Amino acid sequence: MKSAILTQLNEVLQVTESPKPILAKGEVLVAIKSAALNHRDVFIQQGLYSGIKIPVILGSDGSGIVSEIAEGVDSNWLNKEVIMNPGLNWGNNPKHQAKDYIIMGTPTNGTFAEYISISAELLHPKPSHLDWNEAAALPLAGLTAFRALMVQGNLQLTNKVLITGIGGGVAQMALQFAIANGNEVWVTSSSDDKLQKAFELGAKGGIDYKKDKWNKELVQQAGEFDVIVESACGSGFGAVVDCCTPGGKVLIYGGTAGNIGNIIPAKIFWRQIAIIGSTMGSNEDFAEMLAFVNKHKITPTVSHVFPLEQAQDALDFLNTGNQFGKVVLSIS
Amino acid sequence: MKSAILTQLNEVLQVTESPKPILAKGEVLVAIKSAALNHRDVFIQQGLYSGIKIPVILGSDGSGIVSEIAEGVDSNWLNKEVIMNPGLNWGNNPKHQAKDYIIMGTPTNGTFAEYISISAELLHPKPSHLDWNEAAALPLAGLTAFRALMVQGNLQLTNKVLITGIGGGVAQMALQFAIANGNEVWVTSSSDDKLQKAFELGAKGGIDYKKDKWNKELVQQAGEFDVIVESACGSGFGAVVDCCTPGGKVLIYGGTAGNIGNIIPAKIFWRQIAIIGSTMGSNEDFAEMLAFVNKHKITPTVSHVFPLEQAQDALDFLNTGNQFGKVVLSIS
Repeated sequence: MKSAILTQLNEVLQVTESPKPILAKGEVLVAIKSAALNHRDVFIQQGLYSGIKIPVILGSDGSGIVSEIAEGVDSNWLNKEVIMNPGLNWGNNPKHQAKDYIIMGTPTNGTFAEYISISAELLHPKPSHLDWNEAAALPLAGLTAFRALMVQGNLQLTNKVLITGIGGGVAQMALQFAIANGNEVWVTSSSDDKLQKAFELGAKGGIDYKKDKWNKELVQQAGEFDVIVESACGSGFGAVVDCCTPGGKVLIYGGTAGNIGNIIPAKIFWRQIAIIGSTMGSNEDFAEMLAFVNKHKITPTVSHVFPLEQAQDALDFLNTGNQFGKVVLSIS
Repeated sequence: MKSAILTQLNEVLQVTESPKPILAKGEVLVAIKSAALNHRDVFIQQGLYSGIKIPVILGSDGSGIVSEIAEGVDSNWLNKEVIMNPGLNWGNNPKHQAKDYIIMGTPTNGTFAEYISISAELLHPKPSHLDWNEAAALPLAGLTAFRALMVQGNLQLTNKVLITGIGGGVAQMALQFAIANGNEVWVTSSSDDKLQKAFELGAKGGIDYKKDKWNKELVQQAGEFDVIVESACGSGFGAVVDCCTPGGKVLIYGGTAGNIGNIIPAKIFWRQIAIIGSTMGSNEDFAEMLAFVNKHKITPTVSHVFPLEQAQDALDFLNTGNQFGKVVLSIS
């Protein structure tokens, strides 16, 4: 089968033939129609991730058709249009993943290929209102956004929401989920163009986080926020916390700006704020996310589509940060 | 009436006569039997607190007898033995205090005096198993510890608890509450003597937080903690977070070691940890704390007792950090 393989760290992906996976008990073979990219793929290529094993087929997001099933799998799955929960071995505790939790595409082979073998337990029906590219754009970003906002964040209808760095795939799904839920949502971005696109999706307002004292200006305009979804952290994290209302929540699912620095403790304890970590989600979270997407007919924003042969170009493009929404590989 | 008054910042308290308070509607006069000290009093004297108005009678904790009641107060309170919730104007939201929330003893006059006037709503019956000094030791520390551990921390019976800096009044009440609740509790302190005293109160184990890699050694001994109660913060906060189990909670109610610095975001988001601020508590939290204290016959540890005339010596002693439990003024 055709596949985009990382054979060496810091080397370009090799698009080449590799053996079609052989199914273990309880697994299915999915013929991938589309795959989506995540920053995780870039980090793995650059060696900035734990547990890397090469060679590996990258990719955590995919949509496709079940083309083979192994022993022990419900035969109803055969020929079904599916998407896949990219998280393996979450375990039984809804509060956190187990120690052996991994994500498709490292260390196990991922979706940048014509076929993938996965446990039937991770299959979910593809939402019928989405095309293959849109469906592939949903799993990792949708799951991460849904758990942060709805599970860890326990979003209430009356909550005013701030989503930082709105260009990213997770941030954008969080924006769509919160708006579909009926919440008032504000955003930040360093790009006017991305702010504009967020307004088109229904954000009430937004601000450039590179502006001096952006947080004061934002709170002046919008008031304080009950729920903040953040993934930059770094030295600017204190400014984000300052936007949170007393008794509110700051959900963090990433830290692209590096270590959290220099937070005055009283800003957290006197204002009774909760800073809550969130990552990926359980298979139950995935099913709930999907039900929410189906109910509200949410369509992930696909920024750009590349053919599998241009997988490296797609990664390079993702790495420029110029996308709004997901970068997708069309596979078959 | 005799009172210990702060007349100038950074000057010693003046123990002198001042006018007996005149009651407003809904208020009572409490004849103070004992008052307890908090680090807050030291910070106020040093000018390190917001909203200071001088001259002021310091003191947030007191026990006594209701000696007068104003119009509108239930006459059953007269001559009752009471303690007082030190927090005024919490407001209606259980999640956080209102903007005009203040604590007795700055800006309003406090308990380092023979009498205090307060709203009858803040009166609570003195637990009958406590003497005057013990009862005075309870309010601020007990309320802060109870809200952090039980309300914000939502402590469950199966949770393993870590309480840092066990010499402090709040830490020590948290230790007693968690042990009374049936939890396994570990502690940290830089003093062997304080660790020993914590073991006598029922702590299962503990470690000196000044030791290199104390957190690794502690987790090796005890395993990771579900609930951590912390008030130092500073550059050592990351080591505290490292002791938290995935899906666990770190409650912070203070920041004596200064700004939080240099936390790796993945330690929070990948491990789905919640860092939750907590301060003081509502009047309902106070009533629940008191019910818990009565049910379990908890007795706050009184470290040292000074007469009101030696209020400054008592503050100076508190500031040495050599106490274990509360420093109390015996007043009448």
